[in-house]
Amino acid sequence: MHLNKKKIINDPVFGFINLQSDIIFDLLEHPIFQRLRHIKQLGLSYLVFPGANHTRFEHAIGTVHLMRQAISVLQIKGHEITDEEAEAVAIAILLHDIGHAPFSHVLENTLVNISHEEISLMLMQELNREFNSKLDLAIKVFTNKYKKQFLHQLVASQLDMDRLDYLSRDSFFTGVVEGTIGIDRIIKMLNIHNDQLVVDVKGIYSIEKFLISRRLMYWQVYLHKTVVAAEFLLINVLKRAKEIITNGGELFAPPTLNVFLTNNFTAEDFHSNIEIQGKNVLQWYTLLDDNDILISIKEWQNHPDPVLSQMAKSITNRKLPRTKFSDKPISPAKEQKYLKQIEKHIISDPDLAKYFLMTGVITNNAYNKHYENISVLYKDGTVKEINDASDINLSTLSKTVKKYFVCYPKELDIY
Amino acid sequence: MHLNKKKIINDPVFGFINLQSDIIFDLLEHPIFQRLRHIKQLGLSYLVFPGANHTRFEHAIGTVHLMRQAISVLQIKGHEITDEEAEAVAIAILLHDIGHAPFSHVLENTLVNISHEEISLMLMQELNREFNSKLDLAIKVFTNKYKKQFLHQLVASQLDMDRLDYLSRDSFFTGVVEGTIGIDRIIKMLNIHNDQLVVDVKGIYSIEKFLISRRLMYWQVYLHKTVVAAEFLLINVLKRAKEIITNGGELFAPPTLNVFLTNNFTAEDFHSNIEIQGKNVLQWYTLLDDNDILISIKEWQNHPDPVLSQMAKSITNRKLPRTKFSDKPISPAKEQKYLKQIEKHIISDPDLAKYFLMTGVITNNAYNKHYENISVLYKDGTVKEINDASDINLSTLSKTVKKYFVCYPKELDIY
Amino acid sequence: MHLNKKKIINDPVFGFINLQSDIIFDLLEHPIFQRLRHIKQLGLSYLVFPGANHTRFEHAIGTVHLMRQAISVLQIKGHEITDEEAEAVAIAILLHDIGHAPFSHVLENTLVNISHEEISLMLMQELNREFNSKLDLAIKVFTNKYKKQFLHQLVASQLDMDRLDYLSRDSFFTGVVEGTIGIDRIIKMLNIHNDQLVVDVKGIYSIEKFLISRRLMYWQVYLHKTVVAAEFLLINVLKRAKEIITNGGELFAPPTLNVFLTNNFTAEDFHSNIEIQGKNVLQWYTLLDDNDILISIKEWQNHPDPVLSQMAKSITNRKLPRTKFSDKPISPAKEQKYLKQIEKHIISDPDLAKYFLMTGVITNNAYNKHYENISVLYKDGTVKEINDASDINLSTLSKTVKKYFVCYPKELDIY
Amino acid sequence: MHLNKKKIINDPVFGFINLQSDIIFDLLEHPIFQRLRHIKQLGLSYLVFPGANHTRFEHAIGTVHLMRQAISVLQIKGHEITDEEAEAVAIAILLHDIGHAPFSHVLENTLVNISHEEISLMLMQELNREFNSKLDLAIKVFTNKYKKQFLHQLVASQLDMDRLDYLSRDSFFTGVVEGTIGIDRIIKMLNIHNDQLVVDVKGIYSIEKFLISRRLMYWQVYLHKTVVAAEFLLINVLKRAKEIITNGGELFAPPTLNVFLTNNFTAEDFHSNIEIQGKNVLQWYTLLDDNDILISIKEWQNHPDPVLSQMAKSITNRKLPRTKFSDKPISPAKEQKYLKQIEKHIISDPDLAKYFLMTGVITNNAYNKHYENISVLYKDGTVKEINDASDINLSTLSKTVKKYFVCYPKELDIY
Repeated sequence: MHLNKKKIINDPVFGFINLQSDIIFDLLEHPIFQRLRHIKQLGLSYLVFPGANHTRFEHAIGTVHLMRQAISVLQIKGHEITDEEAEAVAIAILLHDIGHAPFSHVLENTLVNISHEEISLMLMQELNREFNSKLDLAIKVFTNKYKKQFLHQLVASQLDMDRLDYLSRDSFFTGVVEGTIGIDRIIKMLNIHNDQLVVDVKGIYSIEKFLISRRLMYWQVYLHKTVVAAEFLLINVLKRAKEIITNGGELFAPPTLNVFLTNNFTAEDFHSNIEIQGKNVLQWYTLLDDNDILISIKEWQNHPDPVLSQMAKSITNRKLPRTKFSDKPISPAKEQKYLKQIEKHIISDPDLAKYFLMTGVITNNAYNKHYENISVLYKDGTVKEINDASDINLSTLSKTVKKYFVCYPKELDIY
Repeated sequence: MHLNKKKIINDPVFGFINLQSDIIFDLLEHPIFQRLRHIKQLGLSYLVFPGANHTRFEHAIGTVHLMRQAISVLQIKGHEITDEEAEAVAIAILLHDIGHAPFSHVLENTLVNISHEEISLMLMQELNREFNSKLDLAIKVFTNKYKKQFLHQLVASQLDMDRLDYLSRDSFFTGVVEGTIGIDRIIKMLNIHNDQLVVDVKGIYSIEKFLISRRLMYWQVYLHKTVVAAEFLLINVLKRAKEIITNGGELFAPPTLNVFLTNNFTAEDFHSNIEIQGKNVLQWYTLLDDNDILISIKEWQNHPDPVLSQMAKSITNRKLPRTKFSDKPISPAKEQKYLKQIEKHIISDPDLAKYFLMTGVITNNAYNKHYENISVLYKDGTVKEINDASDINLSTLSKTVKKYFVCYPKELDIY
Repeated sequence: MHLNKKKIINDPVFGFINLQSDIIFDLLEHPIFQRLRHIKQLGLSYLVFPGANHTRFEHAIGTVHLMRQAISVLQIKGHEITDEEAEAVAIAILLHDIGHAPFSHVLENTLVNISHEEISLMLMQELNREFNSKLDLAIKVFTNKYKKQFLHQLVASQLDMDRLDYLSRDSFFTGVVEGTIGIDRIIKMLNIHNDQLVVDVKGIYSIEKFLISRRLMYWQVYLHKTVVAAEFLLINVLKRAKEIITNGGELFAPPTLNVFLTNNFTAEDFHSNIEIQGKNVLQWYTLLDDNDILISIKEWQNHPDPVLSQMAKSITNRKLPRTKFSDKPISPAKEQKYLKQIEKHIISDPDLAKYFLMTGVITNNAYNKHYENISVLYKDGTVKEINDASDINLSTLSKTVKKYFVCYPKELDIY
Repeated sequence: MHLNKKKIINDPVFGFINLQSDIIFDLLEHPIFQRLRHIKQLGLSYLVFPGANHTRFEHAIGTVHLMRQAISVLQIKGHEITDEEAEAVAIAILLHDIGHAPFSHVLENTLVNISHEEISLMLMQELNREFNSKLDLAIKVFTNKYKKQFLHQLVASQLDMDRLDYLSRDSFFTGVVEGTIGIDRIIKMLNIHNDQLVVDVKGIYSIEKFLISRRLMYWQVYLHKTVVAAEFLLINVLKRAKEIITNGGELFAPPTLNVFLTNNFTAEDFHSNIEIQGKNVLQWYTLLDDNDILISIKEWQNHPDPVLSQMAKSITNRKLPRTKFSDKPISPAKEQKYLKQIEKHIISDPDLAKYFLMTGVITNNAYNKHYENISVLYKDGTVKEINDASDINLSTLSKTVKKYFVCYPKELDIY
């Protein structure tokens, strides 16, 4: 049994991945982790990029692979990292996304009122209990309570292994080859200075390229108009389903999803020990995945509620709304104009028409959440932020870009 | 609207794919085709190869891409293929797998008693009605009733575009790089002789390599021990679920799957116009996909039936049986020994124990179904079968290999 | 014979390349073009990047391949390009570098006093005579005298096929994968507006990425310190060899190189019809390649002149000088300090010592020579320069960067 | 200085290659090794595959990279390999080809009468003297005099690192992607049994694929008709040049090549200490590379001897002979017919005509020279030869295939 745990996994992106340790293997086998097989990394993006069916499961394994390499590079450069620390940081990155909701961040705040990071931590603590406190150090690193801060930065920062893996992986599976980053070289250029993760000055052009690739992936994939349309439609479908239930209506849902549709769980509920049909909220959560949503939407195509059924058809059969981006919010006048057209051509009831017009704002915030600047280490020991080190002006890259959007049924275009 | 139909799809395997024609675009948009987004190309293989989440949807698009190239090569070599024929053969390959059941061939004969080929044809005919007979020629080519036989061979033969795509694609997504075939060169070497698809003699080594790669994919991926275990377990789970219903038991299933669990539809039922809850059998079928199965198995983990719940857990949490291959069938004595151990360690009721022991035989037949030899065209116009043309003995490659297998719970290994 | 001219060439970078036309095939077969097989694309860079042995021969073929694709994209977008124009622009790009000296631009102004562009044109005119004026239109396009200016821009501009090929190819052969550009997508985004080559707005991120990749290749490869050292050393070796001859000394050189070492040909000499040993200057030039230089330097290791022999050894055995970059020119004081050390440790004669200290300035000018801005075409028909279109500040990318350098023998470091 | 020796080399085939040890770095820097930069791995094949300009220098570095991986795999599987042994086997593979003549094996027996293996050994011994016997163990391994035989097999056997590298590398640079082998997996499957290098049974399909790929590369690249024509032409050119000198004629040659053209050195001369112009034969040899040959042939185009000049033009301008393969030797009658035509159309003197007709036999022997069977290790500890282990008949793959060839001027085809 022992040898088997050293097993090698075939990864299309990085080739053979060696798990290297028993605990990584055991965590990977755990049902809580296996659930990630059914959480797509890019949610509904597969509706635009047919190859993008990859999951958080593969992504998490990829991050461990990169973490092993990064640790080895840092050790070769003379930085002390104990075996225990190396293991902890590998566990922390393996589990960093364990709490993701179905369709990743899309359904946060729709299905539950709690962030996936908070759930990730709760699940790590749960696993720590099952694994007899073997995750203690990993949790310290994850929550940035361990003395060596650079370990946390390998897990969550502008240059963490999460980012390096997902950019490579998303580029690979979407087929957007331009998103490719020089992952091997970036990792080789990592270094530590005053307990901070830095990049050797020789790697400066690689970092510029990385930032530009990230930006490209951002606008070409993550915020692709059709993907935005599909994601906000998905949110609306779930909202409508909840309303129907709240109003005493009935609809099909698998038991697990049903629990979440009929309740509005808050962070507090997750932390308390209230039980529903013999399971607490966190346990129910670990049973929920993308397929619950997809299967329900498919059935809802036949639901008597015209809003629910039409939006469900729109997703299932990929008849997605038109999206328009703008630097300013849509004006109330323009909004009224759209609504009038919807009432005329799609659905006459004004209360329902509003479901078919989606407006809002998207930002690249998500990608700066754990914001810490990338620092460049010069040969003489000085450190500069990448913006100061590079002679092209990269500050725009770290600015939050806001784009206002409106999504409306494509049929309106012809009027 | 018109221009949009010429759209370009990002494919991770082949890069940009140009759809080139309106009807291909329209077929692709049809709900019957969109269903393929939720039928994984390799079924449960993703439990062994985490990247193998690719679907029949992408595969079908890939085959059209290769078909366009093959047609172009043949035209350049001076063979007359009209625009109408080129379109027909592209449609035929696009739709060749349209009738696949969830988990592809695994659930044929479990969920329904009809082959996927037969359903594919029925769905093509249905689409033909909707598309005002524009698929007439495609259907003729698909059913091999068109005068130019080589067109059918591009769709279904030892060298069809189906095979070229799936070998490349499966190799790509599983990460088994050794399975890579020289697809560009094989297509460049295609030719026609006496209305038969042949390969120019210069391509002989490419064909040898193709046959060896196929063989490698076969044993390394398609018949991987753990994949075999998972697939037969899946069949057993479905069988058990049907038994429970037959015996008056209850279990969760999404409405669509429920229709198939509570009925045993035959080919006749598909052809007749019996309606169930307002839809005929074929319509129900077009609503069924992998997610219905996965979601149900996840729920069945909690079912009171110990067989169903244990097997459901086994799949969901990837606690898969041990598989052993042998050249001979397992002896009744050996079988009894296994059963006794199962009764002792897993489940004491002998009637239930048998569910945990799976035996059978697998063959590489599936890959010879449309068997037609690959023929090599010499410069002097003579034609030889690849076996005679090659100076290595390839006959074994076309022989049906039978392997007997037994799958039993891994726990038994430790006793 | 005819069919053979349609031949397909295996290119490691782009796969199969189809020559498509007889004249391209015939030009490629011509000795003037075959010479390019022995002119390395990246000169002495192979001393740093061992894989960089690729030649101008392959590069020129690659540019034709990309040109065919670009023309096809522009035609599909509705721009009229006749067959004759398509052929002309393919010829023009095939021959754009035909006049390169050994070690490409390194030896311009050392071996001859004429630019390679001027020689390229002379050689095209020579070929035009041999090919009965079939290159008339190609020469017009090359010299920007043809009415359709965008054709010239495909040959020589910031987005020409030359650049697209060499960035991809140099990235491929050096193994600097980060230099990879999204060549397929850039070509798909090309368009024409008011007779100018432009990029569709959807391609804006691809252009940003292209500019950043070019910059990365620039500093990581083209101006790599060791490459700079080797190239200036090569220039010095040739200069010293010429001096020795001028001073009546003797040294080995193959007959062809000897002609250029013992003469100082100017543009005028190339244009006049003076004959040396039965050949005019241009004819001698077409016989000269990298190997003449390499073989001579190898022999010069044994030459009695200590400067020549030491510098020859330095290149042949890759004992290259140390290079230091600075934003300011090296001060006379610092220069004296270096010279003193060289006199002390390397060679005592001050007149000779100066050969071992190389100073100068490098710029990225070479890459802006054909400077024309990249223009972005918006959907409403407006056009903006990329600097205005992009929301990151790219102006630095087009600025000429000057770096002052000093190269001195590595042995000095230890004192 | 020390750190620098740990340097990382960019390899287009394998990515970053870490040299890992000082002695490997120092050997690589030595002029004897640097010479390999100018010995092309595939000789004149670049005339057919324009990308095939890669050299023995890169190849040798690649083999060290693979050797490090193989050693690590074997150590992980529990086999004892000391650091000293690991270093020795890395040195042995680095230097295995150090004695190659210009154009690799093509010019063995033309320029010198001694095998490159014998010269390789002499050069290793020379280096061993310079490196204070640090190569003792490496030489023992290379000459198979070390107790652990499997170390020698990693250097020279059917599965040595030489073969794994050159098949991958040649496939990469020729662009013959079908030649790709599953190098990572083959190395992962290596094992040792009774001091013999074996392959774990799980790797059996990878070995089959490797053998088929090798065969494909063999016929598609190494014995490509045009390559064969160019190589035998090159041999004839050198022979004719030697004859001219023997007969008192004059011709241009760089000093180094001149030494070899005017002498017929035997193995004995290499071992004796005879000096020519102050250098012994081995020293002269280490100064000889491909460029000496190419430059001479270029000049010989103008030589008054019609045979020499015509053949020199044929190579330089790539007007290569037609090659025909046959299973039987060409008949004397047929040979006479060709000669008559040559006398009629090419050169009237019968004594000279024979130079333009080349006949002979080629075999795949070169690739079986170090013949040792590949052995497969079963889980129960038994070992079988790959031919017995595989259920396809691979024996043909190890058989020596003989092909008789005739090469004659292409002009004859039109008569």
